[in-house]
Amino acid sequence: MSIEQYANRFVCDLVAYEPGKPIDETARELGLNPEQIVKVASNENPLGPAPMALDAIRSAAEDMHIYPDGGGYKLRSALAEKYDLGMENVVLGNGSNEIIELLCHCFLNKDAELIAAEHAFVVYKLMATLFGAGYVEVADPNFVHDLDAMAEAITDKTRLVFIANPNNPTGTIVDEETIDRFMAKVPDHVVVVFDEAYYEFLGDNAPDTLKYVKEGRNVCVLRTFSKAYGLAGLRIGYGLAAPQVAAILQKARQPFNTNEVAQRAALASLEDVAHVEKTVTNNAEGLAFYETAFQQRGWNYVPSVANFILVEVGDGDKLFADMLQEGVIVRAMRGYKLPGWVRISIGTPEENKRCLEVMDKLLK
Amino acid sequence: MSIEQYANRFVCDLVAYEPGKPIDETARELGLNPEQIVKVASNENPLGPAPMALDAIRSAAEDMHIYPDGGGYKLRSALAEKYDLGMENVVLGNGSNEIIELLCHCFLNKDAELIAAEHAFVVYKLMATLFGAGYVEVADPNFVHDLDAMAEAITDKTRLVFIANPNNPTGTIVDEETIDRFMAKVPDHVVVVFDEAYYEFLGDNAPDTLKYVKEGRNVCVLRTFSKAYGLAGLRIGYGLAAPQVAAILQKARQPFNTNEVAQRAALASLEDVAHVEKTVTNNAEGLAFYETAFQQRGWNYVPSVANFILVEVGDGDKLFADMLQEGVIVRAMRGYKLPGWVRISIGTPEENKRCLEVMDKLLK
Repeated sequence: MSIEQYANRFVCDLVAYEPGKPIDETARELGLNPEQIVKVASNENPLGPAPMALDAIRSAAEDMHIYPDGGGYKLRSALAEKYDLGMENVVLGNGSNEIIELLCHCFLNKDAELIAAEHAFVVYKLMATLFGAGYVEVADPNFVHDLDAMAEAITDKTRLVFIANPNNPTGTIVDEETIDRFMAKVPDHVVVVFDEAYYEFLGDNAPDTLKYVKEGRNVCVLRTFSKAYGLAGLRIGYGLAAPQVAAILQKARQPFNTNEVAQRAALASLEDVAHVEKTVTNNAEGLAFYETAFQQRGWNYVPSVANFILVEVGDGDKLFADMLQEGVIVRAMRGYKLPGWVRISIGTPEENKRCLEVMDKLLK
Repeated sequence: MSIEQYANRFVCDLVAYEPGKPIDETARELGLNPEQIVKVASNENPLGPAPMALDAIRSAAEDMHIYPDGGGYKLRSALAEKYDLGMENVVLGNGSNEIIELLCHCFLNKDAELIAAEHAFVVYKLMATLFGAGYVEVADPNFVHDLDAMAEAITDKTRLVFIANPNNPTGTIVDEETIDRFMAKVPDHVVVVFDEAYYEFLGDNAPDTLKYVKEGRNVCVLRTFSKAYGLAGLRIGYGLAAPQVAAILQKARQPFNTNEVAQRAALASLEDVAHVEKTVTNNAEGLAFYETAFQQRGWNYVPSVANFILVEVGDGDKLFADMLQEGVIVRAMRGYKLPGWVRISIGTPEENKRCLEVMDKLLK
C-alpha cells in the first residue's frame, strides 16, 4: 500500500503547482540576457519597491537572526490607523493568499461550500479543495461578477462568498450600490470576502467595503503589499475584518506566519505615498496605451481598472510561447478556461511599447 | 447566532497565540535601552546571520517587487546536492513549522492521530488540533523520548509520529541505534517525522536519519535556517522526504509559500561554512559555561546538546518576571507543564555571563 492511500484524498487529488524556472534560467536557455527580458505576467509593480521600503529591507538585514514580531504590532497599528479601525480588526498574512487559506481553514469542511465567480482568481478553488469543501461557480456574463446570482446561490451550506474586486484576471469591478444590494441579502451564517488586492489602483472610485467591517458584519476585506506596493517577493498581505471574524482567523495562523523584513518593508511602504501615486499614474497611462492600441487594431479586450488587461488573441498558448522566444513573458489563460486570451500586466512605458511591438509582429 | 457557531469547532477551541510586544516596546516600558536587553528566550543565533547572508539580503532588496521563485529552484538544488539527494526530496517551508502544518494537513483528520513525546515542542499539539486530529502524548522519563513506548503507542489510527531530535525544550537526544530499533517496528501507514531543527549543533554526533529518506521509507526530516544559520526573522526551513511523501506535501502548500529574500539568504548561508562553525563553537563553549556554573551552584539542569539549556529554579514564572526587570529575557516553561523550570538560550560569552549574574542575584 502506498502512503498516498493514507493521506487525505482531497489533498492527493490536487494537481501540484508546477514551478516555472527562475527568469535567469529561462534567459540562459533562450540565449537571452536576463536584463532584456520583459516580464509582464504576474501583475507586479514595474517601478519596483518604494525607495523607503528598499532602505527598510537593507537596514533590517542584521536583525534577521531574531524571530519576527509574531503579533505584527507596528504594522497592524499602522494599518488600523490608516483605515480608522482597531488593531483587533487587522490580521496579517504571508501574502493575502494566506488569509484566503485561513478563511477556508476556519470555515470550510466537507459539508460546507464556497461561492465564487466563474472567472475568479484560481486560488479560491485551490483552497476550497484543500479543505475538502464544495466549490460553487456562478456565471459572470461579460466577465463581471453577477452579485444577484451569487446571492441566489447561497444555501445553508454556504460559509464563504468571494468577491474579487477588481477581479483577477478580468480586471472588472462591481460598484458600491451593487455590493450594498448584495449585502442586504446575505444571511448571518456566511462570511463575505472582498478580495481587494488591486484596491490602490482604483483611487477615489473604490467602493467602500470597510463600512461593513465597521458595522460588525461578517466580512473580511483582503488587501496586499504585492501589487501597488511592489513587495510581492516578501509575501505580506492582510485581512480587515470585524473582531468576531478576525479573532477566529488569528487562532488558525502560525505564531510567526509573516516574516520580519516584510513587516518592516510594508510599514515603510505605507509612508512612501509618493511611490504609490507614481505607480498608479504609470498604471493609468499604461492601461490607456493598451486600450487605444487594441481598439486601433480591432482586438477584443476587457476594459480594466486594475494593473493588467485581458486581450483575445486566437491561441493564447501559442502567442505566449512565441512571445517568450522574443523575451516577453505574458500569461496564457487556459487555466481560467480562456484559451483564446492572454493577460498582460501593465509595465513601464518602454515595456508596454516592446510588448505591443512583439504582439504586432506575431499577430500580423 | 454568532459566526463562531458556523466555524470549525477545533479551530475555535484553540487559544489564540498571545503576541508579546516588540523588544523595543518592552524596553521603553521598563525604562531600559533596547541595546542593553539580553534576549536568550528563543534559541536564536547570538552571532547574527552569516556575513554572506547579510550581503544577499541587502542586494535582494531591489528585486522584491517580483514574486518569489515558487519552485525554490536554486535553494532546493543546493540542499539536494549538500545531502546527496534529488530535488524531488526537498520541500521548502515558511519556517520548518510550515512543514509541520503541511504534514498535518496531508495526513491528519478527525479519525487520525499524531504521536509525540510528553515534553515535545508545543507546535505539534497546536497543529494536530488545528486539523481536528487526536494527539497522543507518550511519557519521556528523564526528558528523553522513549521510542520503545512510542512504537507501542502506534495504532491503526496513527498517521504521524514526531521525534524531535534534539528535542526543544529539553535539549536531549536519542541515538541512531535507538532510532534504528524504532524504525524496524514502524508500519507502512505511518510517517515518521524527525524534527532536526538543532541538527547543526550536533556535529559528527548527529544520528543519520537521511538514510531512511534514501531508502524510500515514509519519513520526513525537518531542518531549518532559523537556528544555527541565524535567519529566524526570514522564515525558511525545509523537509527532506522520500519522493512519495514529498509529492503529497508539495500539493498542500501555497504556490509562493517561501519569500524570495529568505531563499536567497538561505542559499548564501549554506556557503558561509565559517559562520556555522563559529556558531557551533560559541555554542559548545556556552553550554559548558552554564553546565559548570549550574553544577557549582547545585542547580538541577538537563544536560543539553542543543543551543539552549533547561534549569530548575523553583518558580519559573517569577524568575522570568524578575529577570525581565533586569533586562534579561529567558523562557518560562509553564506552557510545557514545567512551572519550576526556565529555558535559557546560549548567547555570546558576555550575554551568558550577564544572564548568570542576574540569576545569582535573584536566586540567592
